[in-house]
Amino acid sequence: MKKYVIGIDYGTLSGRCVLVDSENGATVAESVLDYAHAVLDEYLPCGRELPKLYALQHPQDYLDVLRFTVRDVLGKAGVCGDAVIGMGIDFTSCTVLPIDKDGLPLCFAEKYKSEPHAYVKLWKHHAAYAEADEMTALAEARGEPWLAAYGRKVSSEWLFPKLLQILREAPEVYNDTERFLEAADWLSLMLTGNESHSAVFAGYKALWNDECGYPSNDFMVALDERLDGVVGTKISEKVLAMDKIAGVLNKNGAELTGLNAGIPLALPMIDAHAAMPACGCTEDGDLVLIIGTSSCQIVNSVLKKSVDGICGCVKDGVVPGFYTYEAGQPAVGDIFDWFVKNCVPAAYSEEAEKRKISIHSLLRERAVKLQAGESGLLALDWLNGNRSVLVDSELSGMILGLTLRTKPEEIYRALIEATAFGTRMILEQYEQSGIEIKRMCAAGGIAQKDDMMMQIYADVLGKEISIAASAQAGALGSAVYAAVAAGVYPSVAAASRAFVKAPLKVYRPNQKDGKVYSALYAEYKRLHDQFGKERNSVMKVLRKINSNKIND
Amino acid sequence: MKKYVIGIDYGTLSGRCVLVDSENGATVAESVLDYAHAVLDEYLPCGRELPKLYALQHPQDYLDVLRFTVRDVLGKAGVCGDAVIGMGIDFTSCTVLPIDKDGLPLCFAEKYKSEPHAYVKLWKHHAAYAEADEMTALAEARGEPWLAAYGRKVSSEWLFPKLLQILREAPEVYNDTERFLEAADWLSLMLTGNESHSAVFAGYKALWNDECGYPSNDFMVALDERLDGVVGTKISEKVLAMDKIAGVLNKNGAELTGLNAGIPLALPMIDAHAAMPACGCTEDGDLVLIIGTSSCQIVNSVLKKSVDGICGCVKDGVVPGFYTYEAGQPAVGDIFDWFVKNCVPAAYSEEAEKRKISIHSLLRERAVKLQAGESGLLALDWLNGNRSVLVDSELSGMILGLTLRTKPEEIYRALIEATAFGTRMILEQYEQSGIEIKRMCAAGGIAQKDDMMMQIYADVLGKEISIAASAQAGALGSAVYAAVAAGVYPSVAAASRAFVKAPLKVYRPNQKDGKVYSALYAEYKRLHDQFGKERNSVMKVLRKINSNKIND
Repeated sequence: MKKYVIGIDYGTLSGRCVLVDSENGATVAESVLDYAHAVLDEYLPCGRELPKLYALQHPQDYLDVLRFTVRDVLGKAGVCGDAVIGMGIDFTSCTVLPIDKDGLPLCFAEKYKSEPHAYVKLWKHHAAYAEADEMTALAEARGEPWLAAYGRKVSSEWLFPKLLQILREAPEVYNDTERFLEAADWLSLMLTGNESHSAVFAGYKALWNDECGYPSNDFMVALDERLDGVVGTKISEKVLAMDKIAGVLNKNGAELTGLNAGIPLALPMIDAHAAMPACGCTEDGDLVLIIGTSSCQIVNSVLKKSVDGICGCVKDGVVPGFYTYEAGQPAVGDIFDWFVKNCVPAAYSEEAEKRKISIHSLLRERAVKLQAGESGLLALDWLNGNRSVLVDSELSGMILGLTLRTKPEEIYRALIEATAFGTRMILEQYEQSGIEIKRMCAAGGIAQKDDMMMQIYADVLGKEISIAASAQAGALGSAVYAAVAAGVYPSVAAASRAFVKAPLKVYRPNQKDGKVYSALYAEYKRLHDQFGKERNSVMKVLRKINSNKIND
Repeated sequence: MKKYVIGIDYGTLSGRCVLVDSENGATVAESVLDYAHAVLDEYLPCGRELPKLYALQHPQDYLDVLRFTVRDVLGKAGVCGDAVIGMGIDFTSCTVLPIDKDGLPLCFAEKYKSEPHAYVKLWKHHAAYAEADEMTALAEARGEPWLAAYGRKVSSEWLFPKLLQILREAPEVYNDTERFLEAADWLSLMLTGNESHSAVFAGYKALWNDECGYPSNDFMVALDERLDGVVGTKISEKVLAMDKIAGVLNKNGAELTGLNAGIPLALPMIDAHAAMPACGCTEDGDLVLIIGTSSCQIVNSVLKKSVDGICGCVKDGVVPGFYTYEAGQPAVGDIFDWFVKNCVPAAYSEEAEKRKISIHSLLRERAVKLQAGESGLLALDWLNGNRSVLVDSELSGMILGLTLRTKPEEIYRALIEATAFGTRMILEQYEQSGIEIKRMCAAGGIAQKDDMMMQIYADVLGKEISIAASAQAGALGSAVYAAVAAGVYPSVAAASRAFVKAPLKVYRPNQKDGKVYSALYAEYKRLHDQFGKERNSVMKVLRKINSNKIND
């Protein structure tokens, strides 16, 4: 009997499951379930309005993905659950929630249904920026040794600022929290009954490392007295290296998935990181660029370097033997969706509807006819703040060069170019810090679908870009880890070699456009440094004026 | 028998005519005719594509206004043409065209139908910016005495750069040009058979003044040898002060209008200036703010001062005894129209249609609920360049502070606020140069209709703003001059006192919002100086990259 493994990729808006042949990595069935509650950024399900910068989720949606998609792939493939020998999951990061003594999310309790702090804080929940800044300042003042490994700045997207926000704003929720943990680790607990914490999640965004553990209790107490002893109580110290498994499916896990109890669950991975083995990126200097609602740039290196403004560096983070560095842009596809939802006139929507194409397709069809630099526009891609290399979630987007003849497709293209410039900024930061980039692979829906955007990226970055063959790089990567957990292959690199197909396509830089883009990038960099780095830049003052307004 | 005067206001998109009681200024009938060809900024009527920055018009549209609207007001009022004793017209400036020996526009000739340079160059034709810069540089190098009176910079909107562009790009058109003149002066010629040139047009935008005349022939020859003798040939020296009349209607004028031959035509006025007597602004320190597709700020003063970045200063320009200063913003209503046409999503258009309101109304309805500073947005209103105080048509617009939660109405309001900040920049320039502003009156469609915008202006400017009672301030102002030309009143001030009613409404600044706006204005000023004044600002480099693109 053929044996299969299952990989599930938890994204920002949906969960995707693949059923994969455990020998050769062929995907035999796929299933996607959109989260019923999507992102809660304006209202809770009860109707309570949320403050600005909130981005919450409902954990029931994650369980629904387990319950629906696993059965769905088995049904589609006509495969019996007995043939599944391992399972892996990957998740957005840092997406965290408070749970009670029974392991249930606090928001499941009647008393907390209308309490925002009892829900999942999605990675892009940016409301804890004051707490993040406070942590950075304190760590700087105390000369904390871990700060350098995190780009010298704590991000509002990370675990501790999010926990501190709960403590400050909803102390009752804080007190009732038995554990505050990654959604991925919570799912491990639901599936296996074991509490385990994945080193990659802890390492990138919970300030943990394999040598020193979490920041010291002294630091925590200096931050807030009430955090005394938080590590070891609300934050578990049971951090497992990535070559371990999370456990085996227990009765509850079997009931949730319809699989057999006893099959191994690989330790959960960060979604973007799971894409690395799925793209065959298991060597020194291999960089994966994941382009989705947000983007990240993950690179393997034999060297340990300090790189300002990255999200973190974890030893053996993806493939044993390498340091894995991660950097990111907190909005990419989200920017284009915002644009289509808010800034495209009726004439365009009507044409798209008539021709039965998406508004995105219509805009791309027009934008691809433009020459580089022709629109005279330049944008900053910070509509959801900047993660790398500035680590400042309070920054905002801008568009410059508008005239009365500016057309929507010109702005759309300028926004795409801006995300490419943002990526170039990150790649240059790696290279200037001594991390060589030898090969570049892109994955994610946008990378596979948007020819124009990928050519722009190749031109702006001046690098060849291979596109991953799998449409579900995250889920396939989770299946790679599942195959290792099931003992089919002895290592991630071996499973990756067996599973990965030739690139779908390779984009090569065009010299003429590259020259124009280098000129535009020089201007992008000036705006980047001016608005992003100067202490009292107009952008930063605007946010202050805006905050005063919100508070009165 | 009651006697009437007629005033016609030629705007950017239409001509408006009023029939006015010559004693008390009561408007007894109005008529508007849209120009059939509107603004030619993408194609000529023959289908020929126009280069970027072009803005042309078809002069037949102006004659059609005469032919239709005068008969229409007489018909509507049931007044016989014999009862009309005077006529006045006002026009956009500097809107210029080449005519042949018979006084006919060159574009009427078969051979020039597809030649862009044979058409009217509308005030907002900005394609002669290189010629304008060349004139500024030469005038600076030669220490030309007139430069200071024009804000030390020649604008691409003015007469000589536009003429020089024709000479350089279409020498045959230049050679076939008998006269190159303001559209208003051409209409005078059509109506009276007299060639006369109005001092206000010559004074503001053709570098003429009552003491020295036009720039010297030496200057013209240094600019281009082929301009030798241009003043006195293609540019007439017959400049008439504003207390003269243009002439009396001849047979052709009577045929065009349906009025009696022999009635006096007042010397044409610049549209915005005609609004001054229509608003009762005939005293020292009276400022009129005209808000339409573009805006201008005109102030009377007993003092002669040098004000950087204004469009000009003419002695006795509007009311005898005063220097009249003009400054301007080249796009205001045009920006909001661009936004509505290009940036408002289908959901908004559909709601507006369903509720039978305009998209502008819907956006205002939502924008008025926002607090000052709440959106976190700040814009630069330079989508059609900057006239005052930077005199740089190559500048462009920008929007800063965008987030994934930014809504269309927030951008709309930020654009309105940006135009208010631009106005404050101009008013401060007047005041810092020693021109006192004692009273402020606003006219134009937007001023009368848009409560939210006028309150924002009062808050941003920190000044009380009276709104002109007449909906047709330009046309009524032309009627004031017509009444003086007809001898009903001995002076403009006397006719103005008789004609003008109490303000429609007065807006008073709100202190709380004023405080927020002062903080935002400080940031606007930083962006203004950085992008507008620095020699190699990102905005200027972008335009260079863009121009290289256009030229290859």
